Amino acid sequence: QIVAAVEDALLDGPLRGKHILVTSGPTHEPIDPVRYIANRSSGAQGTAIAQALAGLGARVTFVSGPADHPMPEGVDVVRVETAAQMLAAVEQGLPADAAVFAAAVADWRVASASDSKIKKDGSGALPVLEFAENPDILATVSQKVEGRPALVVGFAAETDDVINHATAKRQRKGCDWIVANDVSPETGIMGGSENAVTLIHNDGSESWPRMGKQAVADRLAAKISEVIGG
Amino acid sequence: QIVAAVEDALLDGPLRGKHILVTSGPTHEPIDPVRYIANRSSGAQGTAIAQALAGLGARVTFVSGPADHPMPEGVDVVRVETAAQMLAAVEQGLPADAAVFAAAVADWRVASASDSKIKKDGSGALPVLEFAENPDILATVSQKVEGRPALVVGFAAETDDVINHATAKRQRKGCDWIVANDVSPETGIMGGSENAVTLIHNDGSESWPRMGKQAVADRLAAKISEVIGG
Repeated sequence: QIVAAVEDALLDGPLRGKHILVTSGPTHEPIDPVRYIANRSSGAQGTAIAQALAGLGARVTFVSGPADHPMPEGVDVVRVETAAQMLAAVEQGLPADAAVFAAAVADWRVASASDSKIKKDGSGALPVLEFAENPDILATVSQKVEGRPALVVGFAAETDDVINHATAKRQRKGCDWIVANDVSPETGIMGGSENAVTLIHNDGSESWPRMGKQAVADRLAAKISEVIGG
Repeated sequence: QIVAAVEDALLDGPLRGKHILVTSGPTHEPIDPVRYIANRSSGAQGTAIAQALAGLGARVTFVSGPADHPMPEGVDVVRVETAAQMLAAVEQGLPADAAVFAAAVADWRVASASDSKIKKDGSGALPVLEFAENPDILATVSQKVEGRPALVVGFAAETDDVINHATAKRQRKGCDWIVANDVSPETGIMGGSENAVTLIHNDGSESWPRMGKQAVADRLAAKISEVIGG
């Protein structure tokens, strides 16, 4: 009875009947069988957002890179490693009423990833890594002609001139909102438990005070619900 | 009383009074404030070795890169991130009766790590990463004239021609033993719970059957104890 009540509570709410896609965590881009390029995203913010949306009754598809953070509960989890795999999982997850791209996707992959471990050859020569640009998941979905979610939310992790960079990013990508934050090491935000974000939309921006990542998620989920909720 | 008995049991054993340095885990080499180069070492094998040595009564200094695996108990843990930091912690941890270098240390670091996040500049141009060779911790300690541990054990994670590569590595580095293993993705060893190793020493080599990483650790600790134990 308690379980049934909890399930009803989870499935009920302003986002009942809505499907929302959330990406989260870092991507890993292989260099060779043992080495890869990673980033410091823990997946904490994306996980909190998925949880908050599920709490408002949404059906959530959660596409996660290899994150340290435990996966959210009550959502459909799809685990991926690379940016290319993440895009494929996102395409598979559509259609959705909204999409929140909280993952820190690698901009580049190693074009010439090696099938065997790259070794020092004793010559003192250093390896050269050639990069290729990864697919831009946010722009790809934002600019879809058919099957674009009604609300597309991107993230911008910046280290300087945060609001200007994020405003330009919103226009360039074609998404509806950008959640911008300052991930300079001295803020302790990347990998930490708090976040200080500015939400950028077509009418300007609103800066939220620094708060826990779950509080940021709850506030963002409430705003999403205002737009697409029943 | 139980605690005291356990402590006695831990401190007692054939390695009582011996100090052993163990390195473990990957290193992370920063590219910019949010990106880094990593490797797939989980720290599981190094952790098991530290635990096994402590179980035989050794005082263990455990120098660990950013590993997913929980830290071993009953040892002195020193956490580091980069290869340069690991070398500094190792130098600080000496003298030792034996040293076991189980960490998967990055051979290279990014010479020109950026203080701010590297961004796509819209030109389509790709970033160029310049590398510098990292200090060779195993060779540095193996070739010490003063203060070299009586027994220096290295690891060789190879993807092909494992025994030949590892035998050459033992001679090149000047360590006493090499624990060689095949980390090809299809073996599932890197990040997995089992290991299949070949121990290479100056009299040739011995291949051990595939077994759990704790069993590998117990067997290695017993062999170390035969050489340096009281």
